[in-house]
Amino acid sequence: MLSYEPLTPTSFLERSATVFGPRLAVVDGGLELTYAELWQRVQRLAGALATAGVRPGDRVAVLALNGHLLLESTFGVPAAGAVMVPLNIRLSAGELAYILGHAEVTLLLHDDALTGLARQAAEGTEVRLMSATACETLLAVAEPLLVRVEDELAPLSINYTSGTTGRPKGVVYHHRGAYLQALAMALHTRLDAASSYLWTLPMFHCHGWCFPWAVTLAGARHVCLPRMEPEEAWRLIRAHRVTHLCGAPTVLTSLLAHDDAPARALDPRLLACVGGAPPSPALLGRALRAGIDVIHLYGLTETYGPVAICQPQPEWPGLPVEESAALTARQGVGNVIAQRLRVVGDDGRDVPADAATVGEIAVRGNDVMLGYHRDPAATDKAAPDGWFRTGDLGVLHPDGYVRIVDRAKDVIISGGENIASVEVENVLVEHPGVREAAVVARPDPHWGEVPVAYVSLAAGARATEAELIEHVRARLAHFKAPKAVTFCELPKTSTGKIQKNVLRQRAAG
Amino acid sequence: MLSYEPLTPTSFLERSATVFGPRLAVVDGGLELTYAELWQRVQRLAGALATAGVRPGDRVAVLALNGHLLLESTFGVPAAGAVMVPLNIRLSAGELAYILGHAEVTLLLHDDALTGLARQAAEGTEVRLMSATACETLLAVAEPLLVRVEDELAPLSINYTSGTTGRPKGVVYHHRGAYLQALAMALHTRLDAASSYLWTLPMFHCHGWCFPWAVTLAGARHVCLPRMEPEEAWRLIRAHRVTHLCGAPTVLTSLLAHDDAPARALDPRLLACVGGAPPSPALLGRALRAGIDVIHLYGLTETYGPVAICQPQPEWPGLPVEESAALTARQGVGNVIAQRLRVVGDDGRDVPADAATVGEIAVRGNDVMLGYHRDPAATDKAAPDGWFRTGDLGVLHPDGYVRIVDRAKDVIISGGENIASVEVENVLVEHPGVREAAVVARPDPHWGEVPVAYVSLAAGARATEAELIEHVRARLAHFKAPKAVTFCELPKTSTGKIQKNVLRQRAAG
Repeated sequence: MLSYEPLTPTSFLERSATVFGPRLAVVDGGLELTYAELWQRVQRLAGALATAGVRPGDRVAVLALNGHLLLESTFGVPAAGAVMVPLNIRLSAGELAYILGHAEVTLLLHDDALTGLARQAAEGTEVRLMSATACETLLAVAEPLLVRVEDELAPLSINYTSGTTGRPKGVVYHHRGAYLQALAMALHTRLDAASSYLWTLPMFHCHGWCFPWAVTLAGARHVCLPRMEPEEAWRLIRAHRVTHLCGAPTVLTSLLAHDDAPARALDPRLLACVGGAPPSPALLGRALRAGIDVIHLYGLTETYGPVAICQPQPEWPGLPVEESAALTARQGVGNVIAQRLRVVGDDGRDVPADAATVGEIAVRGNDVMLGYHRDPAATDKAAPDGWFRTGDLGVLHPDGYVRIVDRAKDVIISGGENIASVEVENVLVEHPGVREAAVVARPDPHWGEVPVAYVSLAAGARATEAELIEHVRARLAHFKAPKAVTFCELPKTSTGKIQKNVLRQRAAG
Repeated sequence: MLSYEPLTPTSFLERSATVFGPRLAVVDGGLELTYAELWQRVQRLAGALATAGVRPGDRVAVLALNGHLLLESTFGVPAAGAVMVPLNIRLSAGELAYILGHAEVTLLLHDDALTGLARQAAEGTEVRLMSATACETLLAVAEPLLVRVEDELAPLSINYTSGTTGRPKGVVYHHRGAYLQALAMALHTRLDAASSYLWTLPMFHCHGWCFPWAVTLAGARHVCLPRMEPEEAWRLIRAHRVTHLCGAPTVLTSLLAHDDAPARALDPRLLACVGGAPPSPALLGRALRAGIDVIHLYGLTETYGPVAICQPQPEWPGLPVEESAALTARQGVGNVIAQRLRVVGDDGRDVPADAATVGEIAVRGNDVMLGYHRDPAATDKAAPDGWFRTGDLGVLHPDGYVRIVDRAKDVIISGGENIASVEVENVLVEHPGVREAAVVARPDPHWGEVPVAYVSLAAGARATEAELIEHVRARLAHFKAPKAVTFCELPKTSTGKIQKNVLRQRAAG
């Protein structure tokens, strides 16, 4: 059709390969790729996947650190017509096995260094494994392939997240949503061909907040950082004149606390896009002195990452730092392609913009998930009236900005990672000595929050704190293990429900 | 639906009214409107239109200079569910009457100062007139109205353009195209809430290249300029610290030739987006010295304005000015949301990227028109294989950039306005003394091109140059009248076709 082309974020790389062909697209250790080379490799990766039997609609999982394999897969798996399943490398083999099964993955691409974990996860299943080295061999001889997208609402990727229930849920993104979200991210963060983007955010986390596509459409440089190590990050920032990075406030905190942090303002200045928790006034002040501007973004896996932005107003930099920090700590407004960020009461109606009435933050629109994979009941429950409930409780300020005041759902957010309390509780009560367990968030200066457990033991049973922590670490990703275990009777309501609010207060006290 | 919202550019104003509510949105002479006020007025304009009998799907024409009425209509007519028909105020009453009839317009909104022209155009028809003053009276008491868009591919506006045939053709834009094009314009020109945009480009021209929406989504300031007068333009540039403007190169030439042009570089710098003809090296040099950066855009009414951008590469500013000017004078590549800019041979296949093989520039995608209103035959002819032929002949450079070398269709582009040769020829041959007439472009240092006529007289007939020019001026927009008339036998091919290429060479010589 003359005036209609399905929206797909893969088209951004196709354009950049033409417009920015000879420009450096990717730096990954010693490997450097231009945009022309990246596009060639992506199409040959698609060809290699097809050679390996991947058919349109198949699910291809990727288990990799930030690097060219993960970035190329983000374009190459859809180029093969397949649906990508990015995997969190910090999950346990058991958790990964669950995801591989639930997503009905047929092929698992993985870093060579993660072969052991990949094998464990796929053990006893029909999932085929392909290491980065094996992939490279196939890619070298593969014909380029590009399966054109016909339906922009078709699934692009499935992103597993810990929600309020025990098992990870598969959040389905469509091509249209990722395309629009990428445009919004590029526009809000002013990415262009002179920009250099440091991958401090894991690309497997909400599909890198759609920055794999945003950076690419701008013709900017992807500078890969496999793990968030401040020394290496500072080296890359200086070597590649980095202008942009994303992450939880902890990322920025670690960078600024490191010996290599600059004594004077960076040149060029750096824009840090911070999400997962509000940046503190102290952090904002330290960042500014280092030549780092901060944008506060807000979102969830269900919203392609940042559905909202604390849109900076031109006047803010002129305000006293405490005042500007208080304004910036809010979650803000819908981004330019998002629908309005709502705060709704139990009746589903908007709360007044009085900065006082608490409601739940609700979103819908083109950058909200298609739904939870193979779980329509959970999808319906999360969006009872067509508006997705985020689980965050907030107030609406008179200037239209939303601020989070509490969390409705039982999720702990630690260093930007979601931890479902119930998932940890389920593992704790598997221990023969444990009768009941409750896991809540404890505020933490570095991680924002960490999980801590309150446990009552079975009659006559014995268990130590260290023993229970090790019990969880053996079964779940290590970041999900409680940092402390308190043995006590759990406080309950008259109907027998554990009073988590009481425990949260106790943990914070 | 949770994850789908129809794209419509009106949503950008709705967002900016929330996010940038108290910020200045519009300056129009003594009138100043904030974003909150603009959104209120737009919804009440929609209410006023409904009160006046406008129903969803109706066509509402607007005949106005750049100002709040035209800008508000761009949002308010769609908010009433109606389709906007922006009118070129330089057209004659006869031309306007044709458009009103062809578009089946039911209501004509017009500036008070254009009452005479509006009455003449609507005379003898059932089109109702509404002056700005009458509109204001209705608006003051109207209830706000917002008809939600259900189909993003539904018509948003019909933009009449002189093509190759005698009668203007109605180019239909859809909501999706204007939405995406606006995002692309904002991204490429780096508009943000601190930007200030001067309306040197007529808003009725290709719907203002979608800048009514691009400026609005950024929360930037619309500074209205009713007519392109350099003295007033410079006054506004300084008073409102203007950062952006658009127009044909003639606009920039006029500005820089004026006594009020700055002796030193402007602060803040200004970005001029130039289209309709390539900027000359001399103009680029003068602009840079005045603190004006230039982006070269390329497009047509059929492509929502700039479908292409001569994407500036970070290295270009460092090159010798002649070299950088030669690179910038090219039409470039598809913009970030456009499909690939193609150059195709007569067989519809891409020419090689050798900077030498000439083909016709062809486009398709989300920012290409739905079609010509009530003229499917012309639509099919213009896009024989689903790719719209622009009528411009170009070559493809090895770096992927397209450069125009000639024009295939018989159109003269004068100061950014299209003139169909055949339309002027048809009027000339209506004169009793004229036997045959051919109108071609003559290069012009200010307008880019101007029309000149070659005429053979009927046996025994007599006519003067002045008489024929006046004959055209009485029937068409004045800019379409030939600047010179040469009486001669017209050169023809063996099959009797007038050799316009010979006349073009003669005119240029």
